[in-house]
Amino acid sequence: MTVGDAVSRDDLRIARVALTPVLVADPPLLNTQGVHQPYTPRLIVEVVTEEGVTGLGETYGDTKYLDLARPLAALLRGHRVDDLNGLSRLADRLAVDAARVDGAVDVGGLRGVQTAEKLRLSVVSAFEVACLDALGKALGLPVHALLGGKVRDAVEYSAYLFYKWADHPAGVAAEPDDWGAALDPAGIVAQARRFTERYGFTSFKLKGGVFPPDQEIAAVHALADAFPGHPLRLDPNGAWSVPTSLKVARELADVLEYLEDPTTGTAAMAEVAAGTAVPLATNMCVTTFAEIEEAFTRDAVQVVLSDHHYWGGLRRTQQLAAVCRAFGVGVSMHSNTHLGISLAAMTHVAATVPGLGHACDSHYPWQSEDVLTARLAFEDGAVRVPDAPGLGVELDRDRLAFLHRRWARDDGTLRDRDDAAAMRVAEPGWQAPRTPRW
Amino acid sequence: MTVGDAVSRDDLRIARVALTPVLVADPPLLNTQGVHQPYTPRLIVEVVTEEGVTGLGETYGDTKYLDLARPLAALLRGHRVDDLNGLSRLADRLAVDAARVDGAVDVGGLRGVQTAEKLRLSVVSAFEVACLDALGKALGLPVHALLGGKVRDAVEYSAYLFYKWADHPAGVAAEPDDWGAALDPAGIVAQARRFTERYGFTSFKLKGGVFPPDQEIAAVHALADAFPGHPLRLDPNGAWSVPTSLKVARELADVLEYLEDPTTGTAAMAEVAAGTAVPLATNMCVTTFAEIEEAFTRDAVQVVLSDHHYWGGLRRTQQLAAVCRAFGVGVSMHSNTHLGISLAAMTHVAATVPGLGHACDSHYPWQSEDVLTARLAFEDGAVRVPDAPGLGVELDRDRLAFLHRRWARDDGTLRDRDDAAAMRVAEPGWQAPRTPRW
Repeated sequence: MTVGDAVSRDDLRIARVALTPVLVADPPLLNTQGVHQPYTPRLIVEVVTEEGVTGLGETYGDTKYLDLARPLAALLRGHRVDDLNGLSRLADRLAVDAARVDGAVDVGGLRGVQTAEKLRLSVVSAFEVACLDALGKALGLPVHALLGGKVRDAVEYSAYLFYKWADHPAGVAAEPDDWGAALDPAGIVAQARRFTERYGFTSFKLKGGVFPPDQEIAAVHALADAFPGHPLRLDPNGAWSVPTSLKVARELADVLEYLEDPTTGTAAMAEVAAGTAVPLATNMCVTTFAEIEEAFTRDAVQVVLSDHHYWGGLRRTQQLAAVCRAFGVGVSMHSNTHLGISLAAMTHVAATVPGLGHACDSHYPWQSEDVLTARLAFEDGAVRVPDAPGLGVELDRDRLAFLHRRWARDDGTLRDRDDAAAMRVAEPGWQAPRTPRW
Repeated sequence: MTVGDAVSRDDLRIARVALTPVLVADPPLLNTQGVHQPYTPRLIVEVVTEEGVTGLGETYGDTKYLDLARPLAALLRGHRVDDLNGLSRLADRLAVDAARVDGAVDVGGLRGVQTAEKLRLSVVSAFEVACLDALGKALGLPVHALLGGKVRDAVEYSAYLFYKWADHPAGVAAEPDDWGAALDPAGIVAQARRFTERYGFTSFKLKGGVFPPDQEIAAVHALADAFPGHPLRLDPNGAWSVPTSLKVARELADVLEYLEDPTTGTAAMAEVAAGTAVPLATNMCVTTFAEIEEAFTRDAVQVVLSDHHYWGGLRRTQQLAAVCRAFGVGVSMHSNTHLGISLAAMTHVAATVPGLGHACDSHYPWQSEDVLTARLAFEDGAVRVPDAPGLGVELDRDRLAFLHRRWARDDGTLRDRDDAAAMRVAEPGWQAPRTPRW
């Protein structure tokens, strides 16, 4: 283990790639589109170098992501894990079925604009993380060191509060959870208390857009009363009109850290931003580099929440942070349902971003299942930045196989996330509301 | 040499830093401020790890840079070469003498705005490159691989044409050069021919602001006649008024690839940009991240020429490129007088930047002296991207010592670059002209 024994670059070539789609348990969490299905698809990527070092990555597991991941995996044999720019260029070659993106709606628009480029990047991200993991293991360096080095030893996360049912609808195969129902201000406060007791979170984000705005305003006020002075956020996923957004901003001006995607689209966000001093955050109207110029020049958003999957990986997330810094726009991290590989990836990159002024979002506490031998832990609301080589996590192959068998057995109904379909089980005839809903 | 023998991270700690100021020969190249002095100061930085791996960096060598480099070097003992973000944070601690930056003029303003932050970054850049060189050597990876991997195998450079005298003024100690004088269109064309014959350059940049604009317009037309269809640029270092800039743009519209810093300041550049279809490039009005927002939102510049020294190193140059890409602004590289270490650094980072649509600038052909055992070569106007570990260059300690002795013997007159002072030797009473000069 000395510096003199530098690696041979050919050892860094990829010998094999394994793609393993899985279905992981998800509680009945409500949003403006519907409710989370009992199981959600994720894709686990393994790249194995010529020397037998395995790197891990993770991304969205819906069919359209799998359909791109497979040809990309085939292109990667012989590619070096240190050649991350080359990885992007290989991905540029992949043809994307226009029907997958043109006017397509991904989980009711919760994931923002759908373009071929963004779809490619969402797939590339898993391979980029896997390459960084493998490279770090090969070199003996943690991923954060490959990204320039951590500027903090722990990354703070927020409690991600959801309106939820106690259980998925009767008759639906599902894993039970012990969180109970949360359908009113008292339920949300109880959920928040549990988050603080279990994980030490001190910031709270409420996923809104579920109930009429007055009820959600009341829930945020209840949180402010229960946790005075703590940072609070509300995210209705673009469900409101501009006037409704301004009304909510007015009523919550004293307690909100920021309001997240109150309304849909850059033009409407800019209108809201012009009418309130409450900062606006987004992971819907700025999810690609192409959307930045208009949003920043119109001052439509004050905080961009990066989902490293959307943005094409950890290095592009750092680039996004650099763009935000140059324009005085804040940056933090968005989360969708994910497992420990992505939490580790988020933690490594977040550790390297200077001026990360807001706790990151993570769904991870809601995921009772994982593919790791040891789950990442939140202590005092934060995840310690791993200093072990690579991401610092280890795959549990038995768990991976178990979760993959669940995916393999599925008849197709759960392989593409569809919150409206899940809602229809409880409310026949439910359609995801058009925006603005209120 | 196998992947299994990963490095120990403690081996990557810095045991020793050596700072060696040098004076290198510079021909009598003219610009709007005056003329290059016969010798110009550069600072060579060596970081040596615990395992004895040496990394090389280079930056401006004027006193104010040395004054910051010394305390930074002292802070670096024990710092790991992979912790580049930590390097920036150490530099943030350095106090900058306000007199060095507040309203100070650096080489007559040729280097753009002077701020404490930019001064720190110009120093940090040499240490960042040295750390990357050491890290690459320790790991067995070229610097471009540490930056995400090259997307091209060679980086194209332009011929950097100067009006020049045949010799420095009589009685001034100087090294002779074999380029002869170039003081009119025929002289510039002859110089350009020599550049193409020696190095294969196919793009040409003329440093202007020396003669009244009509003479420089004539020189560019002469170049266009001699090299039809080749990319041409003219850079008067901000010497012109807005009307003069627009007149030059009009007369050269058919032959210019871009016009570089025709006028001084973002507001004036925006006025020129609004009045011409010729793209404007800059390394004067956008030299820091703080200057980007105004320049981009006003569409004042269409190409940013990064000097990786100003911008704080290679990773920040990549971030600048990402900002430019997001706003549809082109990016290329600026050069000041520099040696082979910086040329190698420029080449590595330029190799990793997608969409580098313009040949980079380099003064390197004008530098007959270097601190390397082997000079970097231009073939067909391009430098091959080194694939050896680190930067892929080797220090010639005898040459370094020789050039340092020249610095040590200097009485102070050459330790701070001053093109106006050099001009006064030939033209007593010369003062660097105020802008706009024409």
